[in-house]
Amino acid sequence: MPSLEPLFLNDERRKTSLATGFTGQDILSVSQFDRESLEHVFTRAHEMRELVDRAGYSNLLKGYILTCLFYEPSTRTSASFIAAMERLGGSVIPITQGVQFSSVSKGETLADTVRTLEQYSDVIVLRHPEIGSARVAADYSAVPIINAGDGAGEHPSQALLDLFTIQQEMGRIDGLKIAMVGDLRFGRTVHSLTKLLVQYDVSLRFVSPEILRLPLVLMNEVKDAGLNVRETHDVADVIENADVLYVTRVQKERFNDLTQYEEVRGQYEITTELLERAKAKMVVMHPLPRVGEIHYSVDSDPRAAYFRQVKNGMFIRMALLAMVLGKA
Amino acid sequence: MPSLEPLFLNDERRKTSLATGFTGQDILSVSQFDRESLEHVFTRAHEMRELVDRAGYSNLLKGYILTCLFYEPSTRTSASFIAAMERLGGSVIPITQGVQFSSVSKGETLADTVRTLEQYSDVIVLRHPEIGSARVAADYSAVPIINAGDGAGEHPSQALLDLFTIQQEMGRIDGLKIAMVGDLRFGRTVHSLTKLLVQYDVSLRFVSPEILRLPLVLMNEVKDAGLNVRETHDVADVIENADVLYVTRVQKERFNDLTQYEEVRGQYEITTELLERAKAKMVVMHPLPRVGEIHYSVDSDPRAAYFRQVKNGMFIRMALLAMVLGKA
Amino acid sequence: MPSLEPLFLNDERRKTSLATGFTGQDILSVSQFDRESLEHVFTRAHEMRELVDRAGYSNLLKGYILTCLFYEPSTRTSASFIAAMERLGGSVIPITQGVQFSSVSKGETLADTVRTLEQYSDVIVLRHPEIGSARVAADYSAVPIINAGDGAGEHPSQALLDLFTIQQEMGRIDGLKIAMVGDLRFGRTVHSLTKLLVQYDVSLRFVSPEILRLPLVLMNEVKDAGLNVRETHDVADVIENADVLYVTRVQKERFNDLTQYEEVRGQYEITTELLERAKAKMVVMHPLPRVGEIHYSVDSDPRAAYFRQVKNGMFIRMALLAMVLGKA
Repeated sequence: MPSLEPLFLNDERRKTSLATGFTGQDILSVSQFDRESLEHVFTRAHEMRELVDRAGYSNLLKGYILTCLFYEPSTRTSASFIAAMERLGGSVIPITQGVQFSSVSKGETLADTVRTLEQYSDVIVLRHPEIGSARVAADYSAVPIINAGDGAGEHPSQALLDLFTIQQEMGRIDGLKIAMVGDLRFGRTVHSLTKLLVQYDVSLRFVSPEILRLPLVLMNEVKDAGLNVRETHDVADVIENADVLYVTRVQKERFNDLTQYEEVRGQYEITTELLERAKAKMVVMHPLPRVGEIHYSVDSDPRAAYFRQVKNGMFIRMALLAMVLGKA
Repeated sequence: MPSLEPLFLNDERRKTSLATGFTGQDILSVSQFDRESLEHVFTRAHEMRELVDRAGYSNLLKGYILTCLFYEPSTRTSASFIAAMERLGGSVIPITQGVQFSSVSKGETLADTVRTLEQYSDVIVLRHPEIGSARVAADYSAVPIINAGDGAGEHPSQALLDLFTIQQEMGRIDGLKIAMVGDLRFGRTVHSLTKLLVQYDVSLRFVSPEILRLPLVLMNEVKDAGLNVRETHDVADVIENADVLYVTRVQKERFNDLTQYEEVRGQYEITTELLERAKAKMVVMHPLPRVGEIHYSVDSDPRAAYFRQVKNGMFIRMALLAMVLGKA
Repeated sequence: MPSLEPLFLNDERRKTSLATGFTGQDILSVSQFDRESLEHVFTRAHEMRELVDRAGYSNLLKGYILTCLFYEPSTRTSASFIAAMERLGGSVIPITQGVQFSSVSKGETLADTVRTLEQYSDVIVLRHPEIGSARVAADYSAVPIINAGDGAGEHPSQALLDLFTIQQEMGRIDGLKIAMVGDLRFGRTVHSLTKLLVQYDVSLRFVSPEILRLPLVLMNEVKDAGLNVRETHDVADVIENADVLYVTRVQKERFNDLTQYEEVRGQYEITTELLERAKAKMVVMHPLPRVGEIHYSVDSDPRAAYFRQVKNGMFIRMALLAMVLGKA
């Protein structure tokens, strides 16, 4: 594992302010985004959808090179970024497998690896198992870094695509009743999406087993924002009023007592029967992959938005790449 | 290993009929192809050869994205499809290594993985160790699936390139004497090519050790088609009359008794001495890789067609990609 | 590991003479290069730098396909070649991981693998753990082979980029005082660069621990060329007069006696204090990755050229690709 120690950091190289636009900036955290910059990204992402629907691709990023530097494999995320770059006419250096076997990791610091790869490329998407790694990479890189997951830290493009999906599916964000379901304690996507939602006028419902409740710090953020919020243990409590059901997996491994797991798991399974009680116009979302928490029979329900959510990920990443490269 | 259970299958999504053209169709099995559709593919493949010879590439598939989803590595096959897509100006998402380490395989079904990747891409080439996996992928995917090997099942583009090579090298297929040599029991390529050949007026000779004879079911298909067919244990019996010698490896592992293996192996080795007795105009083919069954001295013989066969694979795959994407 | 046995070699296929130009030639060894051909490459590489600075890319190699065939992973080198090909508008078949798990290595000879991949591609970059492997590949391939490292053998594009960096940074090569520091016994990059430098009028200083001195054979080459040369154990001896400090790592593993290692290591560490005694106009180079032999505080010194050296690697590889493909 490369050392992350940010030696001799030059503060002037920090490039994460979106205040004066996205060009040349890093995308490291959802905390960089206010409502205005979110709106800006969503407008661009919507244009990307129209572009793909109309023409399939463009030459906007022709001649630009994206390095996908993945210290741990994530087929789903790397495929999404590769598709995004290719649909804009750009090229990719795919370092998505086996970095751990190669010289870049044999004692070389992440800083040196990034300073090497920036010589070849115009933007770097980084996946790394350690919290804070994307920040270190950004401090050393002259080209924009997009954080595609730094361990238990952030994965901002996922949160952006989640919020974009809500806006696209429901036509708005303000005024919605949004229920988060499943593992709210460890679920990185829930935390990031929640941090974005506190900027909007939404009602939040958190549905989880007792041991997987939303962390107190985050709950306090929600309350400080003055949002209408409530917690419950059963998805049945929220199904009738929810505009958005954001489902995550309840992992068996989280339970010391497996009988406890068997008791609660039924309360977090989304089925066609459950959805009969839901609004006609609402959406079921999931960051995927799922392993049983949404029954396959739900897939043909028009309210099942999770695969459209995947596609929105490509549009969001097309938007981010174009924006940080100054071509949006 | 992802579950293959095709839950809630919508029969209308089956898209493997080539009766009304190839656009949007899956390529899963040689059984989809009749003489007319084979002729159609070969005409396109021949145009691709001319294109590459003349210009090296085209922009026919510019803006299109191929996902190579390989659950087991196959450098040879993935390189051929990648080259085919790139020579037509298209782009590739190469998931050719290590899927087994990534989240897409951690309990996610193949159906979900495919429905995720189809959001990013216009066509998916799938290699998967389980028989039937390509069928499942095709049932769930809205974009065309090309089966690049599903375990002991099918690998149709290999059979197409084999038959295309015979046609290109000999100028015709009808009327030829074709000998299959080596492991005819387990050899997937022999089985698939044979299934295509029964549609033509050819004589077939099957040359194998006793324990590696062609399966009875397949032999009956050949006989039902009314073809002139004979089996033998020694390639010397067929060498003088064969127009095509299709050689496969006799694997030591298939023999319980190694003295038996040592006894027979010499009967399946293709040498320059053996070829002195062959026709002046005939071809030696092999699906590759070879490990000794064709001596290297044969390579400089103009009848050695196995590397030209490799190149034909690229042309066939260019043709298939263009055809299923409606651009041929 | 594929056999390298070059059976039935056709001498006419050797294509490593640069006397009549680079088109269609292999790049296997620094011994192919005289001053004239080096100048030629550097002129092209400089044009590539201007191209990238001005436009970012070109369409010079549009429609051409490079296969990166790496039998051992080298993220750094493969990324450099991929970037080079993509910046010239070409495409890549990236076989950079896991060849060892795939059929191409299961008993197939390197010769057969190369003859397969040349059907798909216009040029092959090969990394292979065995000395001489690039030579074998070149003998069998009809398309140009670029050696990207054959074990303890050669890695010519590294030596070219090192020499190009000296020329670009110092404006000339003749007349310079060049010090090589660190592991001069096993360091492949030191050996290759030295072989190129004997063609110039330079002074050489070799700074190493006793057990890591330059091999006698190479030292004799330097002396035979009539160069001013001296060896020393301490970098302090050369720091004041050096125009170029080419630093490599002193690996702990080389020492049987670790106390000996601890004693000498300080003599090979490049620090800001050390550089205070160096000329105002000189350069510090390193093939990277480094693990402590150049202190991070040196990075902000304008004389630290190692990351510019990385970028020069891309320009050199752009030049080589364009030249062997006849498009320079």
